[in-house]
Amino acid sequence: MKLIDKLYERSKKNMAVCLGLDTKEAFLPEYISDMDISLGEKYFLFNKAIIDATKDIVACYKVQIACYEALGMDGLNAYQKTLKYIRENDGIVIADIKRGDISSTAAMYADGHFKGDFEADFITINTYMGSDAISPYFDYLKNGDKGLFVLVKTSNPNGHQIQDLETKEDKKVYEIMAEYVDKWGEDFVGECGYSAVGSVVGLTYPKEFLDVKKYMPKAFFLIPGYGAQGGTGKDIAEIFKDDICGVVNSSRGIISAHKGKVEDETFTTLTVKAVKDMQEDIGKWL
Amino acid sequence: MKLIDKLYERSKKNMAVCLGLDTKEAFLPEYISDMDISLGEKYFLFNKAIIDATKDIVACYKVQIACYEALGMDGLNAYQKTLKYIRENDGIVIADIKRGDISSTAAMYADGHFKGDFEADFITINTYMGSDAISPYFDYLKNGDKGLFVLVKTSNPNGHQIQDLETKEDKKVYEIMAEYVDKWGEDFVGECGYSAVGSVVGLTYPKEFLDVKKYMPKAFFLIPGYGAQGGTGKDIAEIFKDDICGVVNSSRGIISAHKGKVEDETFTTLTVKAVKDMQEDIGKWL
Repeated sequence: MKLIDKLYERSKKNMAVCLGLDTKEAFLPEYISDMDISLGEKYFLFNKAIIDATKDIVACYKVQIACYEALGMDGLNAYQKTLKYIRENDGIVIADIKRGDISSTAAMYADGHFKGDFEADFITINTYMGSDAISPYFDYLKNGDKGLFVLVKTSNPNGHQIQDLETKEDKKVYEIMAEYVDKWGEDFVGECGYSAVGSVVGLTYPKEFLDVKKYMPKAFFLIPGYGAQGGTGKDIAEIFKDDICGVVNSSRGIISAHKGKVEDETFTTLTVKAVKDMQEDIGKWL
Repeated sequence: MKLIDKLYERSKKNMAVCLGLDTKEAFLPEYISDMDISLGEKYFLFNKAIIDATKDIVACYKVQIACYEALGMDGLNAYQKTLKYIRENDGIVIADIKRGDISSTAAMYADGHFKGDFEADFITINTYMGSDAISPYFDYLKNGDKGLFVLVKTSNPNGHQIQDLETKEDKKVYEIMAEYVDKWGEDFVGECGYSAVGSVVGLTYPKEFLDVKKYMPKAFFLIPGYGAQGGTGKDIAEIFKDDICGVVNSSRGIISAHKGKVEDETFTTLTVKAVKDMQEDIGKWL
């Protein structure tokens, strides 16, 4: 089974929940904070407890590498251990790295994040530099066991400054980016009808979301912006009207659900509850 | 003295040469390749020999993190050691990381690359996501000892796909990006008249270079595309007509100059010669 088909199946089974391991010191339960180990080691223990508790109820995990780069080598050690642990437990992991560079450099990022210490299933990329920033990854996509999510229309307030510029083709920059994503993904479509070249589109701009969907009917979506950033289950229902065509990321709302409430080993009871609440919030509209 | 003033002085003194440590296995001299140590350790020994030989004749170093991420933890260990070694030797280092994300994530990248294990002097960033992808770095820029280079018009063949789109404001996307860079840099201008918010513009499009310069008169440039990618000393002369307003990166042309010729400890004689040839190629037009 191709990776994109596996993600599609899991998304349908688990109401599209993508659990974001954007781990921060403030989210650690006290029993972990109090340990006499490095912060990176604490991050890994925290992530491991969450993965153990949620592996059968989420579609996939997204790991934001910046949380780990912020801690230097210690953090990246936690990052590599987290990715390995997810994959060893038959989980699907999206490495949120948003890399983007010329082709010779992109080829090195592909080697760095599709094999070796930091091997992920999917990675996110930024193609402001055009197709040179994506084509080196295609070699890894051929066998059907790796995938990409390309930034198109992002969830942040000032994303419009560049992405929403109106071009003389009567399309916005993000619409043209969406057309490229559609083209780049042509050769990597799975049984489910979606391509291993997916797209990142924020839930915070629901009207624009429906607009870009038209430009890339084969794109599977990684959707940030749920919960803390303002996106709701109702917004998702509109996008998933015809089919569950993506995964919806939630991080803080899930991994800090225990803070101030349960600070011992049983903290994941609240993590699991938060996942189930999100499933219900999405499910009730579908 | 502010960092941007220091870089400006060194660029004038050393004909704008930015030495790119885009280290690859194929560039290692045989006496290092043959050692019984990890590839990352070999990368560091190679970089150290080059830094020792060139620290007084280059304006700065640029380290492409992808070369190191490609090797996983071992590579990132070489990356951190290389950055530390440059800084301990009073060198200026540009970390070519091209990160770009929403503000909470950008803040973590700032922590990761402006302090701790991976501390650099300058970093490159990608602002397809707008000002949210740059504003978290400003706290680090206030004291005058850190700086940024923002991608505007890149050197690669397909950069035009997004960057050259004509907008309804009668400006191309990269021209609008240039206007933002000018605005973002306003508060960080040094004695030299240039801002700590600089710009990456490729030498491979000389006409476009002169065009974007008009939009950001305070921007200091990190200029890729010299040598292997096709840019010449003559192209640089046109850009530097009024002043040496940037640094010109060369990597392969310098760090692989010894390959097939000198494979022992004396390989850096050819590295130094390559730097001096580049200085002459630029200097003869100025």
